[in-house]
Amino acid sequence: MSYDCGIVGLGVMGANLALNIAEKGFRVAVFNRTFATSEAFIEKNKAAPFAANLAAFPTIEAFVASLIKPRKVFILVQAGGPTDSTIQQLRKAMEANDVIVDTGNAHFKDQARRAEELEAAGLRFLGMGISGGEEGARKGPAFFPGGTLSVWEEIRPIIEAASAKADDGRPCVTMNGSGGAGSCVKMYHNAGEYAILQIWGEVFDVLRAYGMDNETIARTLEGWKARGFLASYMLDISIEAAKAKEADGGYLTERVKDRIGSKGTGLWSVQEALEVGVPAPSLGAAVYSRQLTMYKSERETNAAQVALTAAPKASSITDPNAPEVEDLYQATLISIIACYAQMFQCLRELDNVYKFGLNLPATIATFRAGCILKGYLLKPMTVAFEQNPNLSNLMVAFSKEISEGINGYRRSLGKITVETSVAVPVLSASLVYVNAMFSSTLRYGQLVSLQRDVFGRHGFERLDREGKDSFQWPELQ
Amino acid sequence: MSYDCGIVGLGVMGANLALNIAEKGFRVAVFNRTFATSEAFIEKNKAAPFAANLAAFPTIEAFVASLIKPRKVFILVQAGGPTDSTIQQLRKAMEANDVIVDTGNAHFKDQARRAEELEAAGLRFLGMGISGGEEGARKGPAFFPGGTLSVWEEIRPIIEAASAKADDGRPCVTMNGSGGAGSCVKMYHNAGEYAILQIWGEVFDVLRAYGMDNETIARTLEGWKARGFLASYMLDISIEAAKAKEADGGYLTERVKDRIGSKGTGLWSVQEALEVGVPAPSLGAAVYSRQLTMYKSERETNAAQVALTAAPKASSITDPNAPEVEDLYQATLISIIACYAQMFQCLRELDNVYKFGLNLPATIATFRAGCILKGYLLKPMTVAFEQNPNLSNLMVAFSKEISEGINGYRRSLGKITVETSVAVPVLSASLVYVNAMFSSTLRYGQLVSLQRDVFGRHGFERLDREGKDSFQWPELQ
Repeated sequence: MSYDCGIVGLGVMGANLALNIAEKGFRVAVFNRTFATSEAFIEKNKAAPFAANLAAFPTIEAFVASLIKPRKVFILVQAGGPTDSTIQQLRKAMEANDVIVDTGNAHFKDQARRAEELEAAGLRFLGMGISGGEEGARKGPAFFPGGTLSVWEEIRPIIEAASAKADDGRPCVTMNGSGGAGSCVKMYHNAGEYAILQIWGEVFDVLRAYGMDNETIARTLEGWKARGFLASYMLDISIEAAKAKEADGGYLTERVKDRIGSKGTGLWSVQEALEVGVPAPSLGAAVYSRQLTMYKSERETNAAQVALTAAPKASSITDPNAPEVEDLYQATLISIIACYAQMFQCLRELDNVYKFGLNLPATIATFRAGCILKGYLLKPMTVAFEQNPNLSNLMVAFSKEISEGINGYRRSLGKITVETSVAVPVLSASLVYVNAMFSSTLRYGQLVSLQRDVFGRHGFERLDREGKDSFQWPELQ
Repeated sequence: MSYDCGIVGLGVMGANLALNIAEKGFRVAVFNRTFATSEAFIEKNKAAPFAANLAAFPTIEAFVASLIKPRKVFILVQAGGPTDSTIQQLRKAMEANDVIVDTGNAHFKDQARRAEELEAAGLRFLGMGISGGEEGARKGPAFFPGGTLSVWEEIRPIIEAASAKADDGRPCVTMNGSGGAGSCVKMYHNAGEYAILQIWGEVFDVLRAYGMDNETIARTLEGWKARGFLASYMLDISIEAAKAKEADGGYLTERVKDRIGSKGTGLWSVQEALEVGVPAPSLGAAVYSRQLTMYKSERETNAAQVALTAAPKASSITDPNAPEVEDLYQATLISIIACYAQMFQCLRELDNVYKFGLNLPATIATFRAGCILKGYLLKPMTVAFEQNPNLSNLMVAFSKEISEGINGYRRSLGKITVETSVAVPVLSASLVYVNAMFSSTLRYGQLVSLQRDVFGRHGFERLDREGKDSFQWPELQ
């Protein structure tokens, strides 16, 4: 009984988090379904200065018995079935008041259910997503806990020590709220991640269609990074991906199959946003963009049967400073802001519905380092919500950037639309969002409200007086 | 015991369906929660030549007792709670082998559940959506039954008689399949309806932004209708909505609030499509377009705080034959085909997952008349699937129209994008869909697959060999 916490699952995330916590001076017990994996982990790290803080146990009982009470166990096995089965095993071995923390990418509704079940059984549970990939887990990720506050307080010293720190020194973790709040925040973090990764994918696709080679694209994006505003981890990895070459000198982008996998969080986020009625078209488009890639065999069949008339080819653009490239920069910048605006709007609306007690500026502040979203933009976004938690929409805080860039965005998307056949789901959806969200009146909505009254006598609201109205339509059928 | 069938719920749909069935020579008993409504209905229709075929009953027991066994009751009350409570009342009064048909806009999963519960209790149940609005119900709607075949056979003579007939004389009803098949077909019928109504809303919005007045827009759309290909009920009601004037001569479109209500079917369709991974971005965009309208107060607040830089104003276009209007026609035509393609793709994929046993050409044939989707296009679509039920995508059957019109579509959307601030969610999403679905390779997908390998070591597939691969990325953090 001398270990501060335990970690179940020594995949790359679990192993790295164990090292990270041990390095911060906590004693960490580890358990893996296959003991050989645990032994190999200990062997591999025996020379680390903090090696004495690590110990592996062959059975879950011995593992649990090694922990200081109330015991604290972090689960880092695969989400879904494997997590549920780990929880069942832990339940048997643990005692009242012990704490189980699931770090998997769970749906917030599942996490709330687990908390209820385990708390009914006398244990304590916290859902806590982690973002930062394997490097983050090792060097300091962002954590997204949610559930019962007293449970958070038990693990807080360990997690704050292990977390990334923002520029102002604040740890990239905050108690997000009750129930599945942490998983909800992680879900929308991931939905934003899907959307912004996709924007960079679209930028790559467009610049290739303009005639740039990968090297020039990487140089262009390095230039964008140097301007500061878009500097971010997601831009960095996009540059890396564009530059990556195999041993024979060929670009990896040319050899990878255009099928993007996914693990559910983006999809769930979009489904839940739809359910509560908060419009998040860019987040939706990001999920569609992945699903479109997965229909590869159908796309190949369609393309084999019909050669779509080519778009009038754009003149080749290979200068990173060409005005068309500047327009694309503005498109990218505004589209990214629009994605964050939707992400925060979703969190705010889901908080209204599920009563998480979210403190949005505090949550956004935890995105500033460690996680996949980290980058310059998170700073002004945090400030914007700190200054005005009731901001009607994040885009309002970036009115200068949007006003200055919007016509570049329009030109850029116009050019892509007319002169290429590149599919740009998120760049398209974001302009729709910007246009709509700054329109006090949407004329299409006026016409559609009337259509519904014609065929279904659904009635319509009026601008000039309250209440429902209907119209005497001529017979059409 | 002398009535052929019973109808519960004398709202406008129930009343009109009762008249329709009575007119076809069947004896119809009606029941409404408030007996006065039933009495008023009988009184109002006492001079009809088929008045003797109608009778109202004050209690559900008397209503049920009046029916020939096995009894057949059609429920036309509000979907959800009122329907469930009607079913409970009927259960008590009915006997083994009696048939309950729910015509509400239910989720197909709920309908499958109801069928199971009622069949376990010895009754028989059919979920059967109806489309055609109130006029359809009176003059002949399309019906979408699904469930157990023997139950369908019981009501088939009545429903085939009451249904609309396509040009070839076939009734606009077919047994769609088992479980919730009928409700699933109705859900996607409605999702298509949302999307295409929205396209017409966007066309109206764009033409207004181009400088046309409502009268000229209506004339333009009349011209499009005369070309035949887009002639449809949804176009007709769009023209009516654009033309509608109030007593003082003002256009109704200027006075209606831009908030579009909805009743769930479009939303469910999009959520289910997302769940099974079939990309339906235009159907999704149609739901987003409605949700965007419902955020009216936020849009007003945003617009009051930030006057978005105006787009460079387009020169005024008031000639229905201007080339820009012809381009918009092509955009509309292809976008509508893309919506149908997604709708049928969804039905096909959900059929795979839920094993409805759908016969897609037979189902599509029932959209040809009666329902809201009715119009010229349903004929060639039916033929396309009859000739090749394994069509990879409906768009392939319209390759001529798409190839001829695609550059007009690109020019039109480019112009809207660059020169206006009109939000065109479905016109935008449909071009993304067309571009993506005819691309054997989506370059954005190649880049995003690599990004995911950089941060998460998710691995990627290769074009040049089978299996998963991974790359040795430099450390970035």
